[in-house]
Amino acid sequence: MADLASNDYLGLSGDPRLVEGAVAAARAWGTGSSGSRLVTGTTALHAELDRRLAAFTGSTAGLVFSSGFLANLGAVTALSGPGTLVVSDQVNHASIVDACRLSRARVAIVPHRDAAAVERALAERDEEHAVVVTDAVFSVDGDLAPLAELHRAARAHGALLVIDEAHALGVVGDGGRGAAHAAGLAGEPDVVLTLTLSKSLASQGGAVLGAPEVVQALLDTGRSFIFDTGLNPPAVGAALAALDVLEADPDLPARARATARRMANLAAGSGLETADPAAAVVPVFLGEPDTAVHAAGICAEHGLRVGCFRPPSVPKGRACLRLTARATVSEADLTRLRAALAEVVHSTGRSLHA
Amino acid sequence: MADLASNDYLGLSGDPRLVEGAVAAARAWGTGSSGSRLVTGTTALHAELDRRLAAFTGSTAGLVFSSGFLANLGAVTALSGPGTLVVSDQVNHASIVDACRLSRARVAIVPHRDAAAVERALAERDEEHAVVVTDAVFSVDGDLAPLAELHRAARAHGALLVIDEAHALGVVGDGGRGAAHAAGLAGEPDVVLTLTLSKSLASQGGAVLGAPEVVQALLDTGRSFIFDTGLNPPAVGAALAALDVLEADPDLPARARATARRMANLAAGSGLETADPAAAVVPVFLGEPDTAVHAAGICAEHGLRVGCFRPPSVPKGRACLRLTARATVSEADLTRLRAALAEVVHSTGRSLHA
Ligand SMILES: Cc1ncc(COP(=O)(O)O)c(C=O)c1O
Ligand SMILES: Cc1ncc(COP(=O)(O)O)c(C=O)c1O
Repeated sequence: MADLASNDYLGLSGDPRLVEGAVAAARAWGTGSSGSRLVTGTTALHAELDRRLAAFTGSTAGLVFSSGFLANLGAVTALSGPGTLVVSDQVNHASIVDACRLSRARVAIVPHRDAAAVERALAERDEEHAVVVTDAVFSVDGDLAPLAELHRAARAHGALLVIDEAHALGVVGDGGRGAAHAAGLAGEPDVVLTLTLSKSLASQGGAVLGAPEVVQALLDTGRSFIFDTGLNPPAVGAALAALDVLEADPDLPARARATARRMANLAAGSGLETADPAAAVVPVFLGEPDTAVHAAGICAEHGLRVGCFRPPSVPKGRACLRLTARATVSEADLTRLRAALAEVVHSTGRSLHA
Repeated sequence: MADLASNDYLGLSGDPRLVEGAVAAARAWGTGSSGSRLVTGTTALHAELDRRLAAFTGSTAGLVFSSGFLANLGAVTALSGPGTLVVSDQVNHASIVDACRLSRARVAIVPHRDAAAVERALAERDEEHAVVVTDAVFSVDGDLAPLAELHRAARAHGALLVIDEAHALGVVGDGGRGAAHAAGLAGEPDVVLTLTLSKSLASQGGAVLGAPEVVQALLDTGRSFIFDTGLNPPAVGAALAALDVLEADPDLPARARATARRMANLAAGSGLETADPAAAVVPVFLGEPDTAVHAAGICAEHGLRVGCFRPPSVPKGRACLRLTARATVSEADLTRLRAALAEVVHSTGRSLHA
């Protein structure tokens, strides 16, 4: 079954270079990191990955976590707290939502991609401190946050901007350096990036990148960093190898983006509602949950595995297929996708933006 | 530097069998799992590990997470919620504390190891549902929860008992099957276990084990399961290999426990306050933070890396060294520890339970 559902956007998970990175790390450092990074869990490999991720994204400093989920929990909770306002896009990832709940800060949920609403929330606050948090590329719809506007609002009102690069790293920006880099925000002192190593980098883990004071705050109070075992060495080795691949082949991200645009064009050409993909995520909106499930079944009959999202993961009436483009999707896969989407339209009677 | 700080209790992280498990998994399945376990992130290896962990601990069903931290968040939040009372030991691990905060349930914090207080909290509740949650072996003091009493209280009052086996799996119970197994609670329908794969199993990841309905609840509402990338295949392979090692050498856990008792005897023999270790964690209580830091420095001069815990990680006045026994700690390491502890007593003027 050809895979149009995985988040391995660059098709690197089985790449021999990454496999050898994991193998060498397992042989040199063992299979586990054996403790919190503050005790025994930081190997030379972890410190190297901290630095490499910071350098790659243009950030000053970085800290690797055992997952992107825990990186988001750590970043938002360590940088906020009582006396802080956290402003969060209503479509942000579940790990950000949970981070907000854990933060003990006042949380303002703002409409999707609404920088003006963010600015108002910041301007009207009573709290001294504030944090704006957003997915860079939203995980289901694949659209881009208005990062430049959000940063202007944050800067004007003395807030930090936390950007989750999960679906942007390795896909968006020059050589895959991410959406903040593309927006000219890399290295800004009031910008914090969170990453996952489990999508384009085809490994596992997460990271928080930012000013040295941000890293210090995580070391001091980041509960999901302090009280969690460090990332396993094979995952660190694989992620380092993925960065090597990206640096050796800086056109790989553009190939994933081009494939995504072709997939979106196929969907639109079939008369289905989609969105202009900012990265490698292509939604095909089908409305009712049953229709989406039926459409996913048709894709499976055509040998294509696709994601299928229904409420409560997406808003009511917005059930969709979630297709992901990989740099390695073949022409044959795209031909099959065209046929499958045509059959979806035919069998559900859906047409243009129905 | 000899390591008396890591949580690799069986000394398996560099074991060739685990390394080969990770290597084979990387070659067969790639370096990343590429998506949520509900979409593309479950390989045959993940399903095997779900089953093997359930069988090993005597549970009915199981589900592997990407960390023990996220397993605790998933278990407590999916099994509670508004209208539930969660009763939590005041010394429980940070991941359980955060899980309680995320749960939206009413949370009652009870004194350490106080089954009577748990029973009172359950009896006096207005909520229909209740969950009692406890570390099996507490992470810093290394003492055991009164599991049989807690289960009696939970059973009498219609509550679930969630037991975090992080420091017990692979060390406590017949062949390392854990503290619930040792207490005769394995497979009870109202008992849920959470595991980490990052300590005795020398890998990374976590799991929740319990009745099929527990697993179903996690599949339906466990946000840290649904919205997180599946565990990376090398970590799955290493954990499976660790289970093979435990099954082939069922005396390994007893060797770790015996070493822990010898270390505790050395500390007590030096006139320092310690506790009878239930597993592989041996605390040496030193009172003030400065004293503990000084003592850790002396250990380092003797070539021993030890954990050093200070408030707020431990209660005020209870700063301590945290020593961990591994099945592989050598006689030479123990001789060095004796000398180091003697110097701690000498140089700090501390004596018997000072
Ligand atoms: C936007 C976003 N942030 C964070 C995460 C969590 O990352 P990880 O799977 O590495 O925990 C995900 C997906 O898993 C995601 O889609
Ligand atoms: C008692 C306890 N539970 C859970 C965890 C979290 O497990 P993990 O490190 O696999 O996330 C830890 C330590 O890390 C722990 O000590």
